[in-house]
Amino acid sequence: MLPRPNGVVTLLTDYGLRDPYVGILKGALLRSSPKVQWVDISHDVPAHDVATGSFLLHTLVGRFPSGTVHLAVVDPGVGTARRLLAVAAHDCYWLAPDNGLLAPMLAGDAAIDVRAIDVEHLGLHAESRTFHGRDLLGPVAAWLAAGRYGFSALGPRVHDPVRSEDPFAGVPRVVHVDRFGNLVTNVQAAAFAGARGLRIAGRDLPPHATYGEVAPGELLAYVGSFGLVEVARNGGSAAALLEVGRGASVELLPA
Amino acid sequence: MLPRPNGVVTLLTDYGLRDPYVGILKGALLRSSPKVQWVDISHDVPAHDVATGSFLLHTLVGRFPSGTVHLAVVDPGVGTARRLLAVAAHDCYWLAPDNGLLAPMLAGDAAIDVRAIDVEHLGLHAESRTFHGRDLLGPVAAWLAAGRYGFSALGPRVHDPVRSEDPFAGVPRVVHVDRFGNLVTNVQAAAFAGARGLRIAGRDLPPHATYGEVAPGELLAYVGSFGLVEVARNGGSAAALLEVGRGASVELLPA
Amino acid sequence: MLPRPNGVVTLLTDYGLRDPYVGILKGALLRSSPKVQWVDISHDVPAHDVATGSFLLHTLVGRFPSGTVHLAVVDPGVGTARRLLAVAAHDCYWLAPDNGLLAPMLAGDAAIDVRAIDVEHLGLHAESRTFHGRDLLGPVAAWLAAGRYGFSALGPRVHDPVRSEDPFAGVPRVVHVDRFGNLVTNVQAAAFAGARGLRIAGRDLPPHATYGEVAPGELLAYVGSFGLVEVARNGGSAAALLEVGRGASVELLPA
Repeated sequence: MLPRPNGVVTLLTDYGLRDPYVGILKGALLRSSPKVQWVDISHDVPAHDVATGSFLLHTLVGRFPSGTVHLAVVDPGVGTARRLLAVAAHDCYWLAPDNGLLAPMLAGDAAIDVRAIDVEHLGLHAESRTFHGRDLLGPVAAWLAAGRYGFSALGPRVHDPVRSEDPFAGVPRVVHVDRFGNLVTNVQAAAFAGARGLRIAGRDLPPHATYGEVAPGELLAYVGSFGLVEVARNGGSAAALLEVGRGASVELLPA
Repeated sequence: MLPRPNGVVTLLTDYGLRDPYVGILKGALLRSSPKVQWVDISHDVPAHDVATGSFLLHTLVGRFPSGTVHLAVVDPGVGTARRLLAVAAHDCYWLAPDNGLLAPMLAGDAAIDVRAIDVEHLGLHAESRTFHGRDLLGPVAAWLAAGRYGFSALGPRVHDPVRSEDPFAGVPRVVHVDRFGNLVTNVQAAAFAGARGLRIAGRDLPPHATYGEVAPGELLAYVGSFGLVEVARNGGSAAALLEVGRGASVELLPA
Repeated sequence: MLPRPNGVVTLLTDYGLRDPYVGILKGALLRSSPKVQWVDISHDVPAHDVATGSFLLHTLVGRFPSGTVHLAVVDPGVGTARRLLAVAAHDCYWLAPDNGLLAPMLAGDAAIDVRAIDVEHLGLHAESRTFHGRDLLGPVAAWLAAGRYGFSALGPRVHDPVRSEDPFAGVPRVVHVDRFGNLVTNVQAAAFAGARGLRIAGRDLPPHATYGEVAPGELLAYVGSFGLVEVARNGGSAAALLEVGRGASVELLPA
C-alpha cells in the first residue's frame, strides 16, 4: 500500500553549499507548497557521482517517518532525454533522475510502484535545461508531500528503469569513506556475525563493538550504524593509516 | 505596491558553517519571532567579498514567494557609521548593510522603496560592534517577515544608497565560478540568441543546450539556470581546463 | 525553576555535512516528534574535539529562547559505559555525552539540575554502538522539546558529572580561531575595560571598537560578539599574519 505523504521532503544533491542552488531549490519547494518541511541530507555528493549518491540514499531507508518524500539530484544527463522517476518503496517516496541513482530502491522487490514523471501533464515547464531540481523535481516533490497530487497521478507506470548495479552486491569492498576516515564496506552485519574478522590492506582485524574497545591509534572492524561492517581507527582515520579508499577490497575471515 | 510578508527569511552571509555565527543568527530570529521560517542560501560567500554576495543575491530574484524577506550580511564596515538598508524590490524585501551588496535591487527602477533602518526607533541595541546580523538585521528581518512592523515603519526613506557597479553591466566577463567549475558570465540569454557562440581563453564555443549534447570532456556554451550564458565542460570543470576564473574576459561571436 | 520547553532543538556535532549522519539524526527527531524545529549550530567541530565543542556550546548561552533544548554530540567514547547527561542551566536544556562537553554548563552554579539519561527506562534501545545521536540523544531531545517527557523524568539526578577544565579559566590564551582568522581569547570584556591593550606574538595592540577603526591590513584588539577579547586584522586574517592559533598565549597590558 502507498504510504500517506507527511509533508516532509529530504534533499540529497551534488549542488554544494557554496553556490545558491540549494537555496533556490528550497525557494521552488516553497513556491509549490508553503507548508513543506525539508531536511538536508547532504549536498556534497561528489559532482555527478551517481554511485555515491545511490549509497547515501540507501542509508535513509527506515530512518524517516512513513510517507517522507526523498528527493535526490545527481544528474550528469540533465537536459537530455533521460526520464525523471518516482518510486514508492520502503514506506516512502523516492524521486530522482532515471540514471541508476535509485538502484537501492529498485533492487529486489522493494519497489511497489515506479512511475515516469509526466512533467507536461503536471503543467510543469523546464525553464532551464540544466536545473531540473528547481524546475521539475522540486515542485513535484513539494506537491506529492503536500498531497496536491497522489503518487499515481505523477505519470505512467514504467517497467524498465535504469537498474545500475546494487552498490551492496558484488565482491566485498569499501563502498564509502566518511569524514572520520571510517571505511564503510558492503559486508552485512549478518555475514560478520559468524566471522573471525575482516582482512583489509593485508591486516586481519578481529570484530569489536566500538572504538573504546581498542587502544588509541588501533584499528577495529565493527558493525557500523548503517548495519554494515566498517573499519575505523580509535582516535584517528583508518583511511589515512591504511592508505585505502572507496573500492578497496576486503575479505571476510571465516571462523 | 508593497508585497505582504509571508513569514520566510532567506539568509546569505560570509559567516561560514564552521563557527556558530549562523546558528546564533537563527537564535536571534527565533527570539524575535518564534514562527519565522528561514532558508539558507549560502554562508560561504568569501569573507568580506561584497561583489560575490551581490551576484548571489541577484540569483534569488523571482525564485521565492511574494513577500519573502532576503537578509544578506557581507559587512566589512560592520560597526562603523555605514547604514543598514531595507529595500522593497522584485516583489520581495531585501535587508543588508549599505555597502553595495544590494546593487542588483537598486539598479534601474527595480526598487519601489528604500529605507534606512532606524535601529534606535525600533528599540534595538547593538550589543556587539561586530555582529549586527545577530543584534540588528536579524531581529528586523524576523519582525518584518512576521508582520510585527510594516516596511515603511523600519525607518526614513533614503535616496542615496551606495550604488556599486551593477555586477551584470560592463564588459562581457565571468562573474561567478560555481562548484562544478562552470563559468557564469554576465552575458544575458537574449544577447546569446543571435550569436554564433562565445570566445573564452582563445577558444570559440558554439551554443549548446545542455552538457549531454557534447562529448565527455568537451566544452560548451549554453544559457544556464540564471538566464546567463555559462561555459561548462561535460563531466569536468571548465574553470580547471581553461585555467580562468572570475573576471576573465569573454567575447560574444556575432552571427 | 525549570524552563518550559519550546519545541526547538539545536544541533552541535562533529558529524560533518558530507556524510548523511546529520540528516539521519534529523530523521530520528522527526520520527520522535513530527513538530520539532531544529537549528544547526555547527557540524564541523573537529572530529572528537571535545574542547572546541565545549567552547562552541558556551557561545549559545543566552542566545536562544527560554526552554530551548541544546543537543551536542562530540563523542569519542561512544558505545562505552560513559553516561549521557541532561542539564538544566541558563534557562535552557543541554544534552550531551558525559565527557566534559558540558563543562560550561556545569561550571560555577549555572546548573540547576543534572540527570543521567536512563535510556532503558525511556524505552530506548541503541540499535548501533556508534550512533547514539540517532538512537538515544536525538529521540530524548525531541521528546523533551515536545513535552512528551519532563526533564526530571529523563533519569536520576547525578552529582558527579565529568567536569573538565572550564575552557574560559586558566591563563589568558586563544581559545578559538574563526573562519575570518579572528583569534578569540578567554579574556572577558570586563577585564579589558581597564587595560591598555593586549599583547600577542610580541605585538602590543591597543583596544579598538571595530575593524573600521584601523587601516586596512592593521591588527586590532576588541571585545567581540561573544563578550570576549578578540584579535582581528582589518580585511585579512590575524591568525595567518601572526602565525598563531588555538592555545597561543596572550597578555593583558595593565593601564
